[in-house]
Amino acid sequence: MLSIPLLSPTPPLLATANEAEYGPIVLTSVLLSLVVIYLTSKLGGELSKRLDLPPVLGELVGGVVVGVSAFHLLMFPENGALASDSVLMTILQAIANLDPEALTSIFNSQSEVISVLAELGVIILLFEIGLESDLRELGKVGYQATIVACVGVVVPFVAGTAGLMWLFDVSAIPAIFAGAALTATSIGITSKVLSELGRLKSREGQIIVGAAVIDDVLGIIVLAVVASLAKTGEVDVLNVVYLIISASVFLIGSILLGKFFNKTFVAIADKLQTRGKLVIPAITFAFFMAFLANAIHLEAILGAFAAGLVLDETDKRRELDQQVVPIADILVPIFFVTVGAKADLSVLNPAIPSNREGLIIATFLIVVAIFGKVVTGWSIFGKTPINRFAIGVGMIPRGEVGLVFAGIGSASGVLSKPLEAAIIIMVILTTFLAPPFLRLAFKDPIEPVESSN
Amino acid sequence: MLSIPLLSPTPPLLATANEAEYGPIVLTSVLLSLVVIYLTSKLGGELSKRLDLPPVLGELVGGVVVGVSAFHLLMFPENGALASDSVLMTILQAIANLDPEALTSIFNSQSEVISVLAELGVIILLFEIGLESDLRELGKVGYQATIVACVGVVVPFVAGTAGLMWLFDVSAIPAIFAGAALTATSIGITSKVLSELGRLKSREGQIIVGAAVIDDVLGIIVLAVVASLAKTGEVDVLNVVYLIISASVFLIGSILLGKFFNKTFVAIADKLQTRGKLVIPAITFAFFMAFLANAIHLEAILGAFAAGLVLDETDKRRELDQQVVPIADILVPIFFVTVGAKADLSVLNPAIPSNREGLIIATFLIVVAIFGKVVTGWSIFGKTPINRFAIGVGMIPRGEVGLVFAGIGSASGVLSKPLEAAIIIMVILTTFLAPPFLRLAFKDPIEPVESSN
Repeated sequence: MLSIPLLSPTPPLLATANEAEYGPIVLTSVLLSLVVIYLTSKLGGELSKRLDLPPVLGELVGGVVVGVSAFHLLMFPENGALASDSVLMTILQAIANLDPEALTSIFNSQSEVISVLAELGVIILLFEIGLESDLRELGKVGYQATIVACVGVVVPFVAGTAGLMWLFDVSAIPAIFAGAALTATSIGITSKVLSELGRLKSREGQIIVGAAVIDDVLGIIVLAVVASLAKTGEVDVLNVVYLIISASVFLIGSILLGKFFNKTFVAIADKLQTRGKLVIPAITFAFFMAFLANAIHLEAILGAFAAGLVLDETDKRRELDQQVVPIADILVPIFFVTVGAKADLSVLNPAIPSNREGLIIATFLIVVAIFGKVVTGWSIFGKTPINRFAIGVGMIPRGEVGLVFAGIGSASGVLSKPLEAAIIIMVILTTFLAPPFLRLAFKDPIEPVESSN
Repeated sequence: MLSIPLLSPTPPLLATANEAEYGPIVLTSVLLSLVVIYLTSKLGGELSKRLDLPPVLGELVGGVVVGVSAFHLLMFPENGALASDSVLMTILQAIANLDPEALTSIFNSQSEVISVLAELGVIILLFEIGLESDLRELGKVGYQATIVACVGVVVPFVAGTAGLMWLFDVSAIPAIFAGAALTATSIGITSKVLSELGRLKSREGQIIVGAAVIDDVLGIIVLAVVASLAKTGEVDVLNVVYLIISASVFLIGSILLGKFFNKTFVAIADKLQTRGKLVIPAITFAFFMAFLANAIHLEAILGAFAAGLVLDETDKRRELDQQVVPIADILVPIFFVTVGAKADLSVLNPAIPSNREGLIIATFLIVVAIFGKVVTGWSIFGKTPINRFAIGVGMIPRGEVGLVFAGIGSASGVLSKPLEAAIIIMVILTTFLAPPFLRLAFKDPIEPVESSN
């Protein structure tokens, strides 16, 4: 038997031993994680859809099921998990016959790669939301939507933050973060339910959608400010003022500069002749804006959202929308499933007495989340009779925007486990309750189409 | 001034200090790297296109320019580079004010993430090539294409490997790897040039394209075998036989099983109702097959290629093709630019005397690469007069397939720096020379359209 030993021409350096030695197995583990994530997101999403709930809810719950709370398939070291706790790593060990040290190194690398992919997912998600938010539409809905949006941001934020600090002795930064998570409104879920009820074009529907769009913009600014506070770790009034101003200037500045950049972008895309001539410049712009926002100590997603708003104004918008969809399809689920997998809901298990406080906090957040948005209906002025309750209920679902808050909060490390779990439960419940509540609020006078099958 | 210090509820564990502390900065560095990669790929690709060369060549050369050979923007620790050698890391340090230790940790994490993204890029590339290879077409071109393909694989492989071992004393594994890199034929480049010359449907054109497709399949098997040898580090005849059989069985088995799985896949995709109902199952399947190939010690790309071949047979093919394009557009350039950036061409700088051997090896590889393919024209039997030189020349360009070999070889760590650089130079030159050579070989009798501008 011919057997020639390998003479490696360059011995691997110590500093890079990791990559040279475990590189291919890191890829194997990333591939396996992605297969699990995609199967989870599709199973969860489809099941949710069949139950007439938003698919994103199913992706999140699916993540909870495969994550640290239940099946331990998808684990992350920031939960304090070891490689041996992860079922995926156990499978990998069986395949590749690794020693515990190698396995820990691969576990860390794989988690880092999946976490970055999830962050790229939320960047693409916000870029897409930006592309879909039509700034010109906002002008039409006018003052009433703006007032509803502002009340819907201020009331839950103040009530939530103050309540957590005074009633539950939560320290300032986590309380502010949880309060901020209460401000979101999911435009996607609300507008989908409204259109199913045939109420999208009603006066109430127009106000709700307009307010949800403004809420997105306000929410992104709030998130940029809150996440920066979490980084510095201090609530300094001057810093807050600086952050609010810089986030607003960044967003408004990008939109204004974007009016000029628009034409340059279209001109460049028209001149390119190679593959990806539209999508690569667009994604490059989104990533650059995300980098820029990060570089001036704001959130990356603020930059991606601004990039989306800017490119939404171009003639290429439709074509671009279409090409961003498959990219979002493969990256965004990584974010939602990861948020679910990282959330340790077992800290809210009512069977364990020490979880009582977490459960009370969760209940408090849910109550604030619902009433803080329902009151917005009564902020509307004018004499025309209007379904105030329907407007308030329409603002309830937090959906994907609330999850972005939870995900960023979890990554920043400021949230305690019970608080993080309470936010996730709040997002799930508000999203879950909004569709039936909206149907109830709109029960008359338009007769809904009877389904006979 | 109100200033409340942050009480972090969960102190970061030692094992995860990295991720908790540097997580957001790793994202910043990945975003910046991706912006550089995309700008490089578009600039290089477009410039190449204007010079009437394949865009992929420009992406590769662009990578060389921003990488370790020239501008040091995109650096990787496996080259022995330190964080301080990387211009991107210097920029990052200026932004985030990091200490050297933190910078090294971020440099390693960023390199790992970009490397995995590049590997996902080549997986998607091979999935796409699989989707585009029509198995039914192969039957028509028949025996002659098969013979041309086999001669075009065997001659360069044997001549290259034997020459490197006997003339240059290269040890077995790297010599076999370099020999394997000589076997590739770029179907993309060849068919593009043929169609430009109006010769795609000629007898010569049909044989070239058919042979290039078969060459893809043979090449993937050769690569799977060679890369596995590199992992075990030994040339063991039994092992080689096992690998050839397992790679062939894997590929043929997937195609045969695929005939049944096809219908299941279409049925599943038709039942799904949520976003990404076609692309997510397809990518999940591709990643799963890549994982499976990896798990049985073959190359991940063999699995992705098999997945592409299987899904190519479904009715959903067109729709799927279209949706995979944007995903490939954003992932594949990461692979090509990274291959270029990692290749240290300075080891071939003729001004330095010690580089003489590397240069001679590069010259040898180029000569074998050209003559090993040109001879294939004379392997054709039958009495019909045929342009044998044109067929041989048509098989010369290595293009993206040659780069896949170089990239995998580089990642496996078996190639010495001069050998790696020599392979890259060989791929660049053969791809560069093929279009003018083909025009020359086909100079008569069809009058090419005179361009008057």
